[in-house]
Amino acid sequence: MALSDQFIEKLIAAAGDGGVVTDAADQAPYLAEERGLMESTCDAVVRPSTTQATAEVVALCASEHVPIVAMGGNTGLVGGSVAAGGVILSTERMNKVIEIDALNHTMTVEAGCILADIQDAAEAENCLFPLSLGAEGSCMIGGNLSTNAGGVGVLRYGNTRDLILGIEVVLPDGRIWSGLNALRKDNTGYDLKQLFIGAEGTLGIITKAVLKLFPLPRSKVTVMAALDDLDNILALFDRLRAGCGDRLTAFEMVAEIGLDLVVRHIPGARDPFAQRHPWYVLMELTSPSENDDLRGQLESALGRALEAGEIVDAVFAESEGQAAELWKIREEIPAAQTREGGSIKHDISVPVSKTGEFIIRATKLVEDEMPGIRACPFGHIGDGNIHYNLTQPVGMDKQAFLGRWVDFNRLVHDLVKSMNGSISAEHGIGLVKRSELEHYAPEIELDLMRRIKSVIDPDNIMNPGKIFEN
Amino acid sequence: MALSDQFIEKLIAAAGDGGVVTDAADQAPYLAEERGLMESTCDAVVRPSTTQATAEVVALCASEHVPIVAMGGNTGLVGGSVAAGGVILSTERMNKVIEIDALNHTMTVEAGCILADIQDAAEAENCLFPLSLGAEGSCMIGGNLSTNAGGVGVLRYGNTRDLILGIEVVLPDGRIWSGLNALRKDNTGYDLKQLFIGAEGTLGIITKAVLKLFPLPRSKVTVMAALDDLDNILALFDRLRAGCGDRLTAFEMVAEIGLDLVVRHIPGARDPFAQRHPWYVLMELTSPSENDDLRGQLESALGRALEAGEIVDAVFAESEGQAAELWKIREEIPAAQTREGGSIKHDISVPVSKTGEFIIRATKLVEDEMPGIRACPFGHIGDGNIHYNLTQPVGMDKQAFLGRWVDFNRLVHDLVKSMNGSISAEHGIGLVKRSELEHYAPEIELDLMRRIKSVIDPDNIMNPGKIFEN
Repeated sequence: MALSDQFIEKLIAAAGDGGVVTDAADQAPYLAEERGLMESTCDAVVRPSTTQATAEVVALCASEHVPIVAMGGNTGLVGGSVAAGGVILSTERMNKVIEIDALNHTMTVEAGCILADIQDAAEAENCLFPLSLGAEGSCMIGGNLSTNAGGVGVLRYGNTRDLILGIEVVLPDGRIWSGLNALRKDNTGYDLKQLFIGAEGTLGIITKAVLKLFPLPRSKVTVMAALDDLDNILALFDRLRAGCGDRLTAFEMVAEIGLDLVVRHIPGARDPFAQRHPWYVLMELTSPSENDDLRGQLESALGRALEAGEIVDAVFAESEGQAAELWKIREEIPAAQTREGGSIKHDISVPVSKTGEFIIRATKLVEDEMPGIRACPFGHIGDGNIHYNLTQPVGMDKQAFLGRWVDFNRLVHDLVKSMNGSISAEHGIGLVKRSELEHYAPEIELDLMRRIKSVIDPDNIMNPGKIFEN
Repeated sequence: MALSDQFIEKLIAAAGDGGVVTDAADQAPYLAEERGLMESTCDAVVRPSTTQATAEVVALCASEHVPIVAMGGNTGLVGGSVAAGGVILSTERMNKVIEIDALNHTMTVEAGCILADIQDAAEAENCLFPLSLGAEGSCMIGGNLSTNAGGVGVLRYGNTRDLILGIEVVLPDGRIWSGLNALRKDNTGYDLKQLFIGAEGTLGIITKAVLKLFPLPRSKVTVMAALDDLDNILALFDRLRAGCGDRLTAFEMVAEIGLDLVVRHIPGARDPFAQRHPWYVLMELTSPSENDDLRGQLESALGRALEAGEIVDAVFAESEGQAAELWKIREEIPAAQTREGGSIKHDISVPVSKTGEFIIRATKLVEDEMPGIRACPFGHIGDGNIHYNLTQPVGMDKQAFLGRWVDFNRLVHDLVKSMNGSISAEHGIGLVKRSELEHYAPEIELDLMRRIKSVIDPDNIMNPGKIFEN
């Protein structure tokens, strides 16, 4: 649908100077899609700078049934902010930190705040906002809430949902629900915020949030350990968690091929070990107290792990720089895979106790299906979330390999479901995984989701067609 | 409404031997109400022993629009399981621990499991299930989920909602939704379990749950500190949280009158200090590691607090027995208040940073309203939840005092709302606080709740009239 000039004028009146983008070139960044797999189109990009303006824009769109796709940093990986005409509503101009209450350990922010800026604002008050993920330099907190973003801190701090005390939402009819609660306990009826967190913008537009903060870590130790046998990874995890408890804040797995690709393709990356090993674990311990001997605790725990044969070697970061080098190996795997050719991606989770079994079984399945395929599993073993990415066989045509995307998804996701896992652990459903969700989700779940959608957004103007077909 | 013999026969067929209680004497315990403030009546108590039987009972009731009140241990404090005819559905015969996966740190249980039994089952596997509250010896986990129970572990571990990975629910139409997810990460559409947790049985009946477990604490230190000035309590809290982080697992406040009443009325209770002080804090630090010097950490932190004038004295528990004595002072306050005469109760929360201010302002308000009234605030300062209970003036007629319940609620709750707090931090709404919720909740929140109710329970048979009027 094209929007009438009259309607555009109304949008401009509501969103203010610079609040509406209609020029195609200026719209381009909002229509870009992270993985370049989908095309996005819109009639206008609207950038309100206040909740009130957002409400007016939504009310306008509601009055003429114009679809709205809410957008934060546009860093999602499942096409959640891909539009098919209508309005893209960017929260980028609502980017203020409204309040930090260090004693209450809360921060109130607007939806367009960039995650890294929020982390910095918390640190300036000697607090920690623990949400941390690859896109933190450009993703926005509103998008983090709408996708219930995960990342590397989930083992210790939980997903975004666990970090939120209150939200403000513009509902599909233009009403504003102000649920900016900064309380640890509030049992006064249904917990409405839970509906909007993780709803991928299909129920309303989150405009503000109250975030939980934590004591700022004052000591930290980062280690990469090498394992000969994947079967030992859970014994190691259990040993560390039992001994170090919450001081264990990261437990990330890297396969040999992951390190191999990073060292080969990423400038400045190097193998911290004298020789290659089949498996690696990147561990981080933190503590709010300066004089907590994390190094000693980890050395003794890893010493016992070495005696028990759980690990064969370990490298301690001796500086922030060395810690960054170790993290670089983990973080740059997807980029390195891209340089190696086509990769078919899976963002799955299984119970932590089944992660090793999953990797072994999945790898046999995909190698039987395509000899020479290179399974490159990596990720958050500590919370059961594995990015089970497949790199094409050496020399195979990239497009021919990517043409098998759906087949490999089915192979891997069938195994995931048979192990009571999730086909989208942290990235969400959006458009990319909608058909997979429809294939795997029990009808009763889709029915409940549709019922909720039908009473919150009866005209289906909020991010229509995302998660499920209406 | 009376149920026909034919309908009762169908219930018996569905619920099995001993599954239906129609005898008035046998029904009595199910009709009891914790605070004796409300009358409850029913036509039958039904006690299915499986999810399938529960579903059949619900389908039967749905077919004839018979209201159902789900009941666990019946320990709620707001009349949430008070019935007005129809069926009381007790989950007590569904009381099996189905599975413990220690490596995944999860436990799958039936709704009728008693909380203390769950705690014990976790400990037998060297794990901790941290939900802990006064009624843990008789309350059931299904009720804990339906009320999003809080308790003394929230500071460190969160409310019940934060401890749940998956649930199984019998919906109001008799369908079974099996969402027994044991995953730390799962972003596949709306997080449906959040709807049923804390819904007080108005949207369906929770029949099973997957609980999060944690490393079992292997060292613990319990201390009671005395303060001259309430203004210092937050400085002390901040100092301990910053220094000890998550090892601080409890931070509970007791006023002088609370200790006074307990020592006077509770057999075996004694004042651990040489003299009385206006305020006390009960603190507990725990660690999963045996050789974590919690005592040393706390001694140095409290030493600095003493120098800073934040505390004036402190008593360390030298044994489990002494720790229990200190906890007894905190836990027995409500019982001691009862022996002292009438008490008007409030279960409120404010931002942690405002707890001290709230207590001072509220106490001035109630003392101005009724000279001689004795404010006895106690509770979970660390999470902002204060049980602001008022003990009657000495010598006043108890009923005359209790007759002022609503007036004092209004005084205290007006202040709570003006400080952006909650009028029900952990007990829920049920019947007792329904009118308060209707008075204070924005219409938009009640509208959203009613919309959700209307599509999940369109015939309003699930715990009708609780939380809000339909």
